[in-house]
Amino acid sequence: MKELTIVKIGGNVVDKEENLEDFLMKFASVPEPKILVHGGGAIATELCRKLGIPIEMHEGRRITPVDTLKIAVMTYAGLVNKRIVAILQKFGCNAIGLSGADGNTIPARKRNPEPIDYGFVGDVDPARIDSSLISNLMGRGITPVFCAVTHDENGTLLNTNADTMASCIAVAMSRLYSVRLIYCFEKKGVLNNPDDENSVIPIITRQRFEELKKSGVVNKGMIPKLSNAFEALDNGVMKVEIKCGSNICEDSGTLVK
Amino acid sequence: MKELTIVKIGGNVVDKEENLEDFLMKFASVPEPKILVHGGGAIATELCRKLGIPIEMHEGRRITPVDTLKIAVMTYAGLVNKRIVAILQKFGCNAIGLSGADGNTIPARKRNPEPIDYGFVGDVDPARIDSSLISNLMGRGITPVFCAVTHDENGTLLNTNADTMASCIAVAMSRLYSVRLIYCFEKKGVLNNPDDENSVIPIITRQRFEELKKSGVVNKGMIPKLSNAFEALDNGVMKVEIKCGSNICEDSGTLVK
Repeated sequence: MKELTIVKIGGNVVDKEENLEDFLMKFASVPEPKILVHGGGAIATELCRKLGIPIEMHEGRRITPVDTLKIAVMTYAGLVNKRIVAILQKFGCNAIGLSGADGNTIPARKRNPEPIDYGFVGDVDPARIDSSLISNLMGRGITPVFCAVTHDENGTLLNTNADTMASCIAVAMSRLYSVRLIYCFEKKGVLNNPDDENSVIPIITRQRFEELKKSGVVNKGMIPKLSNAFEALDNGVMKVEIKCGSNICEDSGTLVK
Repeated sequence: MKELTIVKIGGNVVDKEENLEDFLMKFASVPEPKILVHGGGAIATELCRKLGIPIEMHEGRRITPVDTLKIAVMTYAGLVNKRIVAILQKFGCNAIGLSGADGNTIPARKRNPEPIDYGFVGDVDPARIDSSLISNLMGRGITPVFCAVTHDENGTLLNTNADTMASCIAVAMSRLYSVRLIYCFEKKGVLNNPDDENSVIPIITRQRFEELKKSGVVNKGMIPKLSNAFEALDNGVMKVEIKCGSNICEDSGTLVK
């Protein structure tokens, strides 16, 4: 099967203009076919603050009432997505920016409001992703750039976790491609010692993951990221790596196995 | 040649939720292939106001400094475009939302800052529009929905007049299709008497246009709209109509000939 690279970037890459340009120049040089999935970062939070829209959280996860959804759609699907597409075009990568509603590529289901009402948050089922349209675009030399906005097929847009979105797209595309999924974040990889950038753990197996969780080395946001990684590997994805956005072309970081 | 319908809607349709839903239900029933082009309306102005970004105009045309461009991209390419796509999906129309940067479908040129610096405003050359990608999408049963944002192919997004964008797309697509272009606005057509909704002028020829301009019946925003219409007819578009958004499925309005 043909290889496909899927890269997910978050706030640390998206928020700073110079980081974003630097990353996108490198991403443009990654061989096709490829897909980029991006989160929104601090821009949405900043806009909420300016407009006096309260940020509601539950156990570290954002709650998305209708006003927050509008901000998410404006910043993720609008500002960030189109900025990424325009910069990629400059670097000779023919990108197309998509939400899950576009071409009905990624339908989702609004999360059950019980026990916690997260508002307009969507959960994706990889089996319902339209891998054929995505593959057709890539066959024309086009690189899809997905923001983490989906829809319920009934007129409602939904905010979606970008890590999970990337993992679901990777699973869906692995029916047609040998998929390599790269999660970019601010560190060089998963670190044994958070204060030592040179303590990257080269390989994390499932067993090691359990140990790292117990010892507290892996905690907070890294737990769902690694869970997504193993979920992807369980469902057909060939390779998952966790590395720094500025190193995507290098053979570094943490391999999840 | 196969027929293609291109419909342009503006603020009067986009701004009110119920008008938009009503229009999109009708648009969904228009036979494929079809393309929708939308302006932004009052949402961008309202957001500028809330964020304290001044609205600058020159002879009725908006000037787009960088902060205003960001708002335009957020609202037009983000909120409005994705809302339209999600609602069309609900009505069974498989829409895909695009800016001119997406797939490099519509490259533009930043307007010369002399004699008036309009800021980040782009002018489109129909000859450079990628009619092949647009046609390929429609061949898959997908309906492109364009917001009036383009790019300069060098990393910069540009705000573009939606009427002109629709006319340029219509001209570009007329190489492959027999194109019918419909401009929707709040009236039933071009009115002989602005206070009488039943005074629709059924046909406007070039000669009649000159007379109507002289007599002042056609004025302000209607002049560039009609100029765009004649420009489109001069460059291969089969038919241009000006009518009310709620009447797009009816044989009414003004035919430009």
